[in-house]
Amino acid sequence: MTSRKSSPSPGRRRLLGSLAAGGFAASQAGAAELLRPLEIAAWSKTPGAPILEHPYGLPSRYEADVVRRAAKAWPLPGAASSMTPLADLHGSITPNGLVYERHHAGVPDIDPSLHRLAIHGLVPNPKLFTMDDILRLPSESRIHFIECSGNTGNEWNGPSGMPVQLTHGLLSCCEWTGVRLSTLLEEVGGITGTSGWVLAEGADAAAMTRSLPLQRIADRALVAYAQNGERLRPENGYPLRLIVPGFEGNTHVKWLRRLKVVDAPLQTREETSKYTNLLADGTARQFVFEMDAKSVITRPSPGHRLTTHGFYPISGLAWSGRGTIRQVEVSTDGGTSWRTARLETPARDRALTRFQADWNWTGEPASILSRATDSTGYVQPTREALVAARGLNSQYHYNAIQQWRIDAAGEVRNA
Amino acid sequence: MTSRKSSPSPGRRRLLGSLAAGGFAASQAGAAELLRPLEIAAWSKTPGAPILEHPYGLPSRYEADVVRRAAKAWPLPGAASSMTPLADLHGSITPNGLVYERHHAGVPDIDPSLHRLAIHGLVPNPKLFTMDDILRLPSESRIHFIECSGNTGNEWNGPSGMPVQLTHGLLSCCEWTGVRLSTLLEEVGGITGTSGWVLAEGADAAAMTRSLPLQRIADRALVAYAQNGERLRPENGYPLRLIVPGFEGNTHVKWLRRLKVVDAPLQTREETSKYTNLLADGTARQFVFEMDAKSVITRPSPGHRLTTHGFYPISGLAWSGRGTIRQVEVSTDGGTSWRTARLETPARDRALTRFQADWNWTGEPASILSRATDSTGYVQPTREALVAARGLNSQYHYNAIQQWRIDAAGEVRNA
Repeated sequence: MTSRKSSPSPGRRRLLGSLAAGGFAASQAGAAELLRPLEIAAWSKTPGAPILEHPYGLPSRYEADVVRRAAKAWPLPGAASSMTPLADLHGSITPNGLVYERHHAGVPDIDPSLHRLAIHGLVPNPKLFTMDDILRLPSESRIHFIECSGNTGNEWNGPSGMPVQLTHGLLSCCEWTGVRLSTLLEEVGGITGTSGWVLAEGADAAAMTRSLPLQRIADRALVAYAQNGERLRPENGYPLRLIVPGFEGNTHVKWLRRLKVVDAPLQTREETSKYTNLLADGTARQFVFEMDAKSVITRPSPGHRLTTHGFYPISGLAWSGRGTIRQVEVSTDGGTSWRTARLETPARDRALTRFQADWNWTGEPASILSRATDSTGYVQPTREALVAARGLNSQYHYNAIQQWRIDAAGEVRNA
Repeated sequence: MTSRKSSPSPGRRRLLGSLAAGGFAASQAGAAELLRPLEIAAWSKTPGAPILEHPYGLPSRYEADVVRRAAKAWPLPGAASSMTPLADLHGSITPNGLVYERHHAGVPDIDPSLHRLAIHGLVPNPKLFTMDDILRLPSESRIHFIECSGNTGNEWNGPSGMPVQLTHGLLSCCEWTGVRLSTLLEEVGGITGTSGWVLAEGADAAAMTRSLPLQRIADRALVAYAQNGERLRPENGYPLRLIVPGFEGNTHVKWLRRLKVVDAPLQTREETSKYTNLLADGTARQFVFEMDAKSVITRPSPGHRLTTHGFYPISGLAWSGRGTIRQVEVSTDGGTSWRTARLETPARDRALTRFQADWNWTGEPASILSRATDSTGYVQPTREALVAARGLNSQYHYNAIQQWRIDAAGEVRNA
């Protein structure tokens, strides 16, 4: 996040419009601005770049630092993650080029004409599906978030000092298109007996594998082949991935090659040695799937600087793995008082919801926080309450209220 | 559209699931498939590409032909268009890299720190806004389509033979984020007297300029800086464009540098010599802004081939510049009989709505059509009805029912 994109400008507005200065208001360009109100820029004088210079378009060169970043160097080859630049994004959709990554064995380069999805186990008619088979089934398109269960794990022990891209950037939201899991199960004759679970396996070299509770997800889960209108990106599971709305990210198995219907979870590596939540008493919560309600202020956030007193909209994201966002409250005094924020985008089921609250910064130091309430009535907890309930042994499922501190100079810090 | 992506495969399914063959169904790979149900692919044996190979992600190399294309070579430097590959897209969102283009003087390379928006004319406090000024105002995010008024103009005289990318591809749909026009007008003290129009001007070398009816758009129009979460792409107006939901594409002025409040339309080049609709009697309809209800089947569509009899979902897009889509009907017998299609995505105001209808192809030649009805009750007309009302003098606002013919070999044609 550069100061160019990050620093709101010294406009002379002190409140929204009502105290606006007359005439052409000076901006950060100062007096020079008054001499060039209708100066014609160089790019207005000669024709620009020709059509189809980019048959597949790319961002402006002035946005070159709005990219995914990694929070740390990973020890194992292929095991890594990269994070979405939340502080520079708007609305609720994440553009495909910036969707976060988490891989256990790198990004496989899969030829879709050779890729197969096997559905077997406790089903009458096990089958192999080609991509074209799957494209011939009825599809659905839904907007859902995906959040890694390790997202914000670096805040368990208090403020990490990191910016929001590195504290909350294992989070993205796309329109996903694919076939309902229940539709695919009908294609293999339905399920038999008391089979209550399904094993999902990826075609990456890690063979990422999770056991999932069938009845809870069959009507909601999608076997997806498209995101935001186009085919999945390689790092997001091309050509096929599982979407389990509201569940932790690792269950949205990428490069999906196999679904096996079973009667009990298979206790795979990814649900025993990893992705379980160790409590203070040494016991572990296993199969913790839903991501609880959470929110974070993305603008202003660390790296931004408030350069003049006056009006600033406080903008952020809220989401819940259990339904829709009912309310977001914002505090600018460290949690002493709260006001209800506007929900900028319609509260969609298990999707990011953009919120916004008006704020007039007087120049005093401030502590800004947001608190989400979801459609089940669950309220995002404080860090203290979360630690009291879960202890400090687990890195997963941290969803506490996040505070940013703003000093008298307008610097925003995670402290 | 390649046959790889375009041709549904010869699965053995004849109806959705109910007649599925037992065991592992053969796919186009035929008997060989039976020998390799769980064969381990090369990409499953060694770690894939490392993280951050692409800090800004790109599509799979296997999707390299899903790109924007031009329908014709344009005579003037910079005046051109490129079209969205609708036949290869899914859902209702258009990814930013594939949003259609229409330029009058090419794509300017604008430095956002130097860009200004002037708001002047019949307002108490005219002002210049920097990008940072605009980012300090309350924003909104909404999903809306944009359609060029010339879209599908090549069908006025009957089937052009072109595929859907070239007949309907001047059409895209994104989540747009920006400031309401009414909010910006409050910043300059509101409007004075009876001023009923606003002139919008672009910073491109064509100084693209349109007069717009202020009262009709003030609460709906956005001065937008982001699309699908990230800043606008250069070819879509970076750093600032006007979004006028439901109005013809050219009114969504890109590279927006000036808004002048006036008491009457200024009769600019783009609303006199162009973007007026010449009728049969020689008179012209001027200031025809709303794009009327329209729909088109995108899959199957010309370039696709049905390779076996059996189930195919008929999928397409519907939209209206006057509200939401209430209903889409599909015919597979040239319009003799119609059935109601499912609306795959929620019917959003002035946004693309994906529809789908189940179809069992018996192998007989077929003619497939779709017909949209919007929330005002308006029904998409036949070509004959449209020509009877408007004549053949204008290339703009063609929204008739589109027919694709499928022959006994499964080839889909615009004939």
